[in-house]
Parts: sequence; structure tokens; C-alpha cells
Amino acid sequence: MTRLWTTVISIAVLLISLPLAAEQWVEKKTFSMESYTTHGGETIKDVKVGWESYGTLNEAKDNVVLITHFFSGNSHAAGKYSENDQQAGYWDAIIGPGKAIDTDKYYVISVDSLVNAYPNLPNVITTGPASINPDTGKPYGLDFPVVTIRDFVNVQKALLEDLGISKLHAVVGASMGSLQAIEWAAAYPDWVERMVSVIGAGSLDAWTIMGLEQWAKAIKLDPNWNGGDYYNGDAPLDGVTMAQAMITHGAMHPEYINQAVPQQETLPEKGLESVTNELPAVEWLYSASRARAPLADANHILYLVRANQLFVAGHQKTLEDGLKNISAKTLFLPSSNDLLLMPYMAENTANTLKELGKEVQYEEISGPWGHLNGLFSIQQKAELLSEFLATE
Amino acid sequence: MTRLWTTVISIAVLLISLPLAAEQWVEKKTFSMESYTTHGGETIKDVKVGWESYGTLNEAKDNVVLITHFFSGNSHAAGKYSENDQQAGYWDAIIGPGKAIDTDKYYVISVDSLVNAYPNLPNVITTGPASINPDTGKPYGLDFPVVTIRDFVNVQKALLEDLGISKLHAVVGASMGSLQAIEWAAAYPDWVERMVSVIGAGSLDAWTIMGLEQWAKAIKLDPNWNGGDYYNGDAPLDGVTMAQAMITHGAMHPEYINQAVPQQETLPEKGLESVTNELPAVEWLYSASRARAPLADANHILYLVRANQLFVAGHQKTLEDGLKNISAKTLFLPSSNDLLLMPYMAENTANTLKELGKEVQYEEISGPWGHLNGLFSIQQKAELLSEFLATE
Repeated sequence: MTRLWTTVISIAVLLISLPLAAEQWVEKKTFSMESYTTHGGETIKDVKVGWESYGTLNEAKDNVVLITHFFSGNSHAAGKYSENDQQAGYWDAIIGPGKAIDTDKYYVISVDSLVNAYPNLPNVITTGPASINPDTGKPYGLDFPVVTIRDFVNVQKALLEDLGISKLHAVVGASMGSLQAIEWAAAYPDWVERMVSVIGAGSLDAWTIMGLEQWAKAIKLDPNWNGGDYYNGDAPLDGVTMAQAMITHGAMHPEYINQAVPQQETLPEKGLESVTNELPAVEWLYSASRARAPLADANHILYLVRANQLFVAGHQKTLEDGLKNISAKTLFLPSSNDLLLMPYMAENTANTLKELGKEVQYEEISGPWGHLNGLFSIQQKAELLSEFLATE
Repeated sequence: MTRLWTTVISIAVLLISLPLAAEQWVEKKTFSMESYTTHGGETIKDVKVGWESYGTLNEAKDNVVLITHFFSGNSHAAGKYSENDQQAGYWDAIIGPGKAIDTDKYYVISVDSLVNAYPNLPNVITTGPASINPDTGKPYGLDFPVVTIRDFVNVQKALLEDLGISKLHAVVGASMGSLQAIEWAAAYPDWVERMVSVIGAGSLDAWTIMGLEQWAKAIKLDPNWNGGDYYNGDAPLDGVTMAQAMITHGAMHPEYINQAVPQQETLPEKGLESVTNELPAVEWLYSASRARAPLADANHILYLVRANQLFVAGHQKTLEDGLKNISAKTLFLPSSNDLLLMPYMAENTANTLKELGKEVQYEEISGPWGHLNGLFSIQQKAELLSEFLATE
């Protein structure tokens, strides 16, 4: 009888907890600042950014893992908002109960960046050129001040301080998120105990700065961009479509794309008919990009490009000067076949840190995805991540 | 006395021949066809292409080496037109008397392609969308039929036949020139004894087709492009500038660019001021491209992109089917760090030929240039080239 009851209760508990165990339910919250002064000295009124958290903040408030997001991403790093959600947050494979970044142990928090590329996504809360300037009642457009990776970090820091937090067990970010993670460690060494850079770099070199500029140039070529002043007319969706297509193409490796896209028939009729017709491979790339374009804001992409282009960790005279301040243990996880932020950049940063006598681990992620291995092949480094977070 | 005379004559001959030994003087010639029918079945009237030759055609007319040019290039492969010329042809390091492609032995010939990207360069003679349509008295624009790599080959073949040539000791080409070289070997196996593919491929894969499309999309975004109809107005120079900048960026490796472009100062004033300002690295890339843009024709670039995108050697059902016909000895020289036409494509083509039982040599070119190692580091393979050309 006792045994039967135990079984019945066990099954009942199991049934109740099943959906909770399978899914993490998350909600988007808003952090507001009456005004924020950029690293460049400009003041922005009424700053709002979205944020999410997974797990529970402990009493000592010292179990915080901050996740900083990539260029096309936002703070939705794990879990689902509701049962209708098709997809969980981008790093759901490594963030959650019992996962590499274990929400049974850590309070994981993530924040939408300023000038987020997708302000028209319902789950993104951001402040940028598309936001209303309280002084004029109109969108800022290019009157919005240029912001830097340091500014993304500073807004996150303001939110953390608001929550009474003054220490990060770790900061972990992929791509542009890695830039923020390194910046955190360089700018606020007293805060950061562990830093994980996934598919990132300590600074962008000339080749990479030029590559990013192509995304911006595409937008500026679109006549609808109109010098950044398009909020009363048609948005420059063709320019945004092209920028996104370049981002997707650059972020993926041929190894993935060539198996995903059907082999082109020899001399396809459409291709021979006119240079204005799109070939199948191009359609594959551009139709997805075209559909997503209305969710982006063209000026926001320009501002994000610039923030990345200006990045030198610590913003000191040289990268080495900036890295000197870092006291965090660091882990670098570039992707071997990354064509966007090539692994040599992470390697150079890791080597500079080593030469400065810092604690550095470096391992490359493999897989068919190129840059996107940092998202889609991250599970490969789950154990390493979990061990790194557990180090004293 | 006889000895003195011999010495005097020797010195005189030496003095006279010195400038000839130091420089190869070349001239651009024109080949005209009353009409040409494309591989796709469209007829173009009054086709003109430029051509150059170095060395002397022997009596048997069997010492011909055809050089096929790259996307941004033309038939000026070696030598100078005059003493005022700043630069010799692009492969002057390997084409000339006593050089790898020895003009003391071979009659080297090169032909401007149809739809050449730079019809406004004084030394380029080509037929394409910017040419006058004899039926209308106006530029063809997009009424010009789509042409393929096979068409470039067919026009070269007509010129060679006109010169009484019916055999190629070798065909050698870099990049798009390699596509033509492979196409020659696949389409006209009785003609081609040796084929050298430098930084090329037997067909372009989906990833590469997408990459090339970005050059076309930049042009199409420029409002001055006007659906290809701009010959009475302003040319789409911004689009062309962006396309060229992407070509240059993609054709070079970070290893070269990062030592050529001065390290950016941390948080440069100009960069922080406005997203519309160009950073120094971008200025480096774009100022050169902007200066060169008026020499290009936007529609010609679109047609060249399409010709490359449609390339599958032999234009059979599959690449393997196309390669089956090849009887030439083949030599593949991709660049190890090529980011534009990655070496795996040449390797795949070479491997397919090997599996088909063909004679294949494969060696990679190294150097800091990426794709452009095929031009700037070619001297590295001079001995191999010379040996390959000397094989029976």
C-alpha cells in the first residue's frame, strides 16, 4: 500500500513536472534609465533595453553568469516564452537545469543591446536611431550618437547594479557577444571572475573592418535609406536584405551551404534568360533574407557595424594595453573554419594574454557551420564550459 | 683586326638589343566577326574583341600557348605598349623570352573576353551590353544575350582559326581564365594538349555562386543602374565602386591586407562622429575602387558574374560528364589561402579527373595574397610551369 502510494505520487509529480523539466519558461523584462551618457560623452534620454534571466539569484548575489549576444541576436539565449514558441533561445543547448551553464547553480542573465539590429521583433526592447527622441517627438535617425561595445557593457552594468549585483561569476558571449565579454573583463576587472569568448576577438583587424563595412554600404546604396531619414517613408528593405544575405553567407561555411542548397542544374533556363533572374542558390539565400528584412532597422545595423568596427578591448592606446587590466580566467572558443571572425584573431588575443601572464585556455570548435559553429556546434564544448565555470 | 671588328659589332648589337631584351613591346589588335551565335542560341552582330601576342608563330602553327584572362583583367598578359607604360602585363613574370612560358619557343596569345568588365579602359576591346546594337544604333543594355564561359572560348577559337591555328600547345588561365582553360579542354579536346588551371575550378558551387551575386546586387541597388538602362544618364558608379571593393576584399587574404593597411587608432574621432564617415581601412579599400569605377561598365560586370555563376566545365549534365572528354594533360595550381575560389574546388576537379584516369598534377601556391597569389606569387611555380609545358 505505501509502495503503491509512493508510486502514484511519483507518477503524479512526474506528470506535473514534465513540462517544466522539458521547457524553461522565460519572460522578457524591461530595464529603463532616465538618461545614459555614452563612452564618447553624449547623453541619451529615456534608454530602455529588454532582458531575460534563467535560474535564481542567490542571497550573496554572486552566482551570476552574464550572456552577451551576437550581432543579429538578442537577449533570448534560452528557454521559450510560451508553448506556441517554435524555437527556444539560441544557446538553449548549453543553458538550463543540469546543462553546461547550469541554471540550478547559476543565475543567468542576458540583455538586449543598444541599437539592436531587430527592433521590430516583438521580443526585442532596445534604444537606437529608430527610437523616439524625447526632445523632438521624432525618431533619432542619425542624430543618435555613435555607440561602442563599451556602451553595451555599461548599460548591462547599470542593470546589474540595479539588481544589487556587483560581481560576475562569468561573462560568456558569442561573436559580438564575445567582444562584449572581453570588454567586460578589460573595463571592469573587479567584476569579472571568468570570461568565455566564443567565435570572437580582442579587436577587429583591417580585413574584418572592411568586411563589415560591406553590410553598411549595401544599406547606404538603397535610395530609400535617404541619408538615414526614412521613418516617414519606405524603409530601405532592399539594402537590409542584401546586408543580411551577406551576413548569412559570411557566417556560414561552404561545407554547410553546399549540402543545404540543391546542386544547380547545368545552364538553367532562368539563368540564361536574363541577368536579372536569380539563380536557385541565390534565391535560397535572398528569399529568407527578404522575409526577415522588415524586422530589422537599417540605421540600427549601421550603428552595430560601427560599434564592432571600433572595438579594441579596453579602448586603450593598444590592444595589449587594454588586455593588461584583465584579471579573469579566460577561455577562448573560436571556430576552426570561421570566415567572418577568423580564428587567428582569437588566437592572437589569447597569445597576447598569455604573454601578459594571464590564465588562458584556447580550444577550437569544429563543424560544418563556419562562424555559426559558435551557435550550432556549441554543445561540443559543453563539458569544457561546465568545468571552466566550476574552476576556483 | 678581325677580332676588334667582332668586338665592335658585338657591342653594337648588344646596345641595340638591350631595350628589346629588357622590355617586350606589344600592341593591341582587333578581331572582328560579322556575327556570332552564342552557345545559348542568340546571335550578336558585329562582334569585336582585342588580342595580343608575344613570340612568333612557327610554320607548323603548333607552338601556340593561349592565355585566358581573369574577371577584372584583359588580354594584356605580358610586355608593355610603350616606354611610358608604368606596368607590364599581369603575368610578365612568367611570360617572355627565357621565362616559364618562353616566348623564344611559344607563340603566346591572349584575347579580351566578351562583356569585359572594363570596356572604358583604352586598351580593352570588347563587345557587350555597353556596345552599340547595330539594329537600333543604341547600346544593347540588358537586350544583350546572356553569355557563358563557352562563348568566351568560342570567340577565341574563331580568332585562332582565322590565324590558321588548329591546335594549342597549352591553354593557361588564372581565376575566370582557369574556367575558360578547363572549358577549352572539355569542349575541344582535340585542340588542347596541355591545360593549366591557376586559382580556378571545374565548376562553381552554391557558396561561391552566392558570393559572386553580392557583386551584382550592389550594382542593382544603385538607383542609377535603372534596370540596366543608364547609357543616357549617370552611370551607377556607387554600385560599381562597392562591387569592386568586394572583389578586391574577397580576392585578398587578411595576411596581406593587415600589413598593407595602417593599424587603426583606438576610437578614432571620425569614427565616433558619425556612421557616415569612413574608417581608414575602408577609405583604403574604397578610394582605390572609386577611382577605378568609371573605367568599368556596370552591366558588363553583371554579365561576367552570370557567366561565372553558370560555369560547369563542358556544360554537360554533371561536372563529371563534362570532364570525361578531356584528353589534355592538366596542371592545377590553386592558392592555399584563397577565400574567393577556395582550393577545395580545384582539388575536387583534379580528383574527379584522376578518378576518370586522366593525367593530373596538383600543387598549391602559397603567399600572403589569398586568391591573388595566382597573379602575384605565380613566379613560385615558374619552374614547374616550364617543365609542364615541355612534357611530351
